[in-house]
Amino acid sequence: MIDSKAVLADLDELRALTATEDGAQRVAWSPVWLKARAWFEEKLAGLPVEHHYDAAGNHWVTLRGESEKALVLGSHLDSVPNGGWLDGCLGVLAGLEVLRGIVRETNGRPPVTVRLVDWADEEGARFGRSLFGSSAFAGTHSIEADRLRVDREGTTLEAALKQCGVDVRSVGDASVEQANMAAYLELHIEQGPILERTGKVLAAVQGTKGVERHTITFRGQEAHSGSTPMEARRDALAAAAKLALEIRPIAMRHPLAVCTMGSVKTFPGIVTAVVGRCEVTVDMRDLDAGVLAEMLRETREASERFAKEEGCTVDWSKIWSIAPIPFHADLIRLCDEAIVETVGESQHLPSGPLHDAAEVAQLGVPTVMMFVQSLNGLSHNPAEDTKRDHVELAVKAFGTLADKTMAWMLSDRA
Amino acid sequence: MIDSKAVLADLDELRALTATEDGAQRVAWSPVWLKARAWFEEKLAGLPVEHHYDAAGNHWVTLRGESEKALVLGSHLDSVPNGGWLDGCLGVLAGLEVLRGIVRETNGRPPVTVRLVDWADEEGARFGRSLFGSSAFAGTHSIEADRLRVDREGTTLEAALKQCGVDVRSVGDASVEQANMAAYLELHIEQGPILERTGKVLAAVQGTKGVERHTITFRGQEAHSGSTPMEARRDALAAAAKLALEIRPIAMRHPLAVCTMGSVKTFPGIVTAVVGRCEVTVDMRDLDAGVLAEMLRETREASERFAKEEGCTVDWSKIWSIAPIPFHADLIRLCDEAIVETVGESQHLPSGPLHDAAEVAQLGVPTVMMFVQSLNGLSHNPAEDTKRDHVELAVKAFGTLADKTMAWMLSDRA
Repeated sequence: MIDSKAVLADLDELRALTATEDGAQRVAWSPVWLKARAWFEEKLAGLPVEHHYDAAGNHWVTLRGESEKALVLGSHLDSVPNGGWLDGCLGVLAGLEVLRGIVRETNGRPPVTVRLVDWADEEGARFGRSLFGSSAFAGTHSIEADRLRVDREGTTLEAALKQCGVDVRSVGDASVEQANMAAYLELHIEQGPILERTGKVLAAVQGTKGVERHTITFRGQEAHSGSTPMEARRDALAAAAKLALEIRPIAMRHPLAVCTMGSVKTFPGIVTAVVGRCEVTVDMRDLDAGVLAEMLRETREASERFAKEEGCTVDWSKIWSIAPIPFHADLIRLCDEAIVETVGESQHLPSGPLHDAAEVAQLGVPTVMMFVQSLNGLSHNPAEDTKRDHVELAVKAFGTLADKTMAWMLSDRA
Repeated sequence: MIDSKAVLADLDELRALTATEDGAQRVAWSPVWLKARAWFEEKLAGLPVEHHYDAAGNHWVTLRGESEKALVLGSHLDSVPNGGWLDGCLGVLAGLEVLRGIVRETNGRPPVTVRLVDWADEEGARFGRSLFGSSAFAGTHSIEADRLRVDREGTTLEAALKQCGVDVRSVGDASVEQANMAAYLELHIEQGPILERTGKVLAAVQGTKGVERHTITFRGQEAHSGSTPMEARRDALAAAAKLALEIRPIAMRHPLAVCTMGSVKTFPGIVTAVVGRCEVTVDMRDLDAGVLAEMLRETREASERFAKEEGCTVDWSKIWSIAPIPFHADLIRLCDEAIVETVGESQHLPSGPLHDAAEVAQLGVPTVMMFVQSLNGLSHNPAEDTKRDHVELAVKAFGTLADKTMAWMLSDRA
């Protein structure tokens, strides 16, 4: 049996150890993160498990079973600065309790091998490179691009990793951990408002949305704010403002699509000058690759139309993109079953945020995630919250999902 | 006699010393600005003048005359980043040549005292506070509001001034320089397209437009770009974008009015978050105080409407404002005469940009400015330009204006 109260106790303990009044401070590669990981190692004492850190800094805990086929449970202990008390660590600590439950129920010898992974640097908060550990594991990392990344203090990613005993040149060796991996499960808070609005506690996640992330630069003519008649201006901000408003109908033509302009930079950016150059970012997401491509095309066309209207030019530069990654149909069904058995009704949701599960699923490993309701849709924020009884229900359902998945792994269907 | 070629030579020398290929870099309180001021001090060698910096960092050069009544010529050596080769420094260097001419013609003892002032931080490029030195001089400064202003690196105005030997708490002491000031003349480039469009070289300036300059902060809810449905967002950028577009019709309802959003700052300002807070600046100008008040009211109402539409709040914070300031009728007439004698025809123009002359005129000191044609209406930009023969004509006419003004000061009419 799963002791879901033990997970709440662990979460509270971790919060007391690694959060300030501004929220969680477990930024990857920082002393507080290392403290959280040391605390987690202590939690393994007395369990019949082997554990080690791989070449990318991912922490693997292995309970050997009758079969070498491995069920992997995972998430991440790292947080954004001033983060919430659940994002990432809920999945790791729920996984730990599932592991403890399996040890209890099988006298430490389950039918399949069960592994728990704490991925390194899921958030990318310090160096802007999210899914660091899981992409190294999956072989989709980009070492040459990443090693020279710098944080705000000018420290390189390479140097920060070295301080934590990780050599950036060999992080790809983490791929050896792929061996025998037969299924991957991840529990996470929703980080959005949909479950709360629909009155549901838990959801089976269909997959992660594809993402198109770009920088768009409008160039007009910087000019004096006092001496340049309105009709003589080529205002780069005006073109950008039109686009900021236009991305909303572009996204809202599709039920679950989102499009965000998160950053606007104006140059020279002073009160006395018409904006000569305006750099904005857009981040578009949808579960359907066709919808995503259509939004990208429409946004590009709109940017060109607005540039022309304002006497400006426009340039696009891709920051990053990823295709939608659907999760495994059988595991989504098992997740639904576990949720229904626990709370009576399930729901399907796509994941808007990326998760390490996306990197695992890309490899072809059967994968599914379970979401638990967030309050007010907030995360990456100390105000992030989930009702404590919902956390307990989530841990219980996740344990049921693990049991069902082990049975499925041993069946003909897997 | 004025040597207008000497002014061109000085301008070229200053450019070589303080500009990069991106333009002038004499941002106030920066090392390059201090270098320009040191260079200017060298230019005073051999002249029978006293010079000193006042409590606000304004540099005063005084040629004592028969009368204590002072004719003051002024402008500023500071520039915006990537500025032009004429904005500000033309007025200082033309003033220097006029001073040299008067020394030559009067053997260093003119009928009235002649002073040249290089105002500190006219542009406000680094801290968003323009006319810093002249407002301190005029007693219209706002020390408490200004001392905590910060630049992009987080340096306070107070700290930056301290590095230049200026104590922000005592800048008001610069008002002692008002003593005996009987007339103020300033030569400047137009910074707009009107003289070029009408085929005129020089204009007598009627006065400066009133200005309302405010920071507007929209606050919505920071949220994850991937997990927050479009309809659940409270996007502070959306409200700001609507306002960026709405200020244009608000200004264009009036013939000479302008309204500019020059700066947009997004917080947290990252690609993966809906903007929770958006800070923008607006700068509104018109010659008519009633029109200016109407634009301010309409912009405020629009900001409140857009905030409401987007589920945001909005706060206004005044950066600075100034009423329309007419120049002195006698000096406008003398300026017309000097222009007609030099180039055959004059024109009257309002000044859209603010100038230190506005601060002086507010005190009741008889003031006028002379404008010389700009090419393509550009300034605050490395592409800022004026034909070299027009610069020479401007210096010549400005010298004539100084002579006429000295005569006027000694007449019964002054």
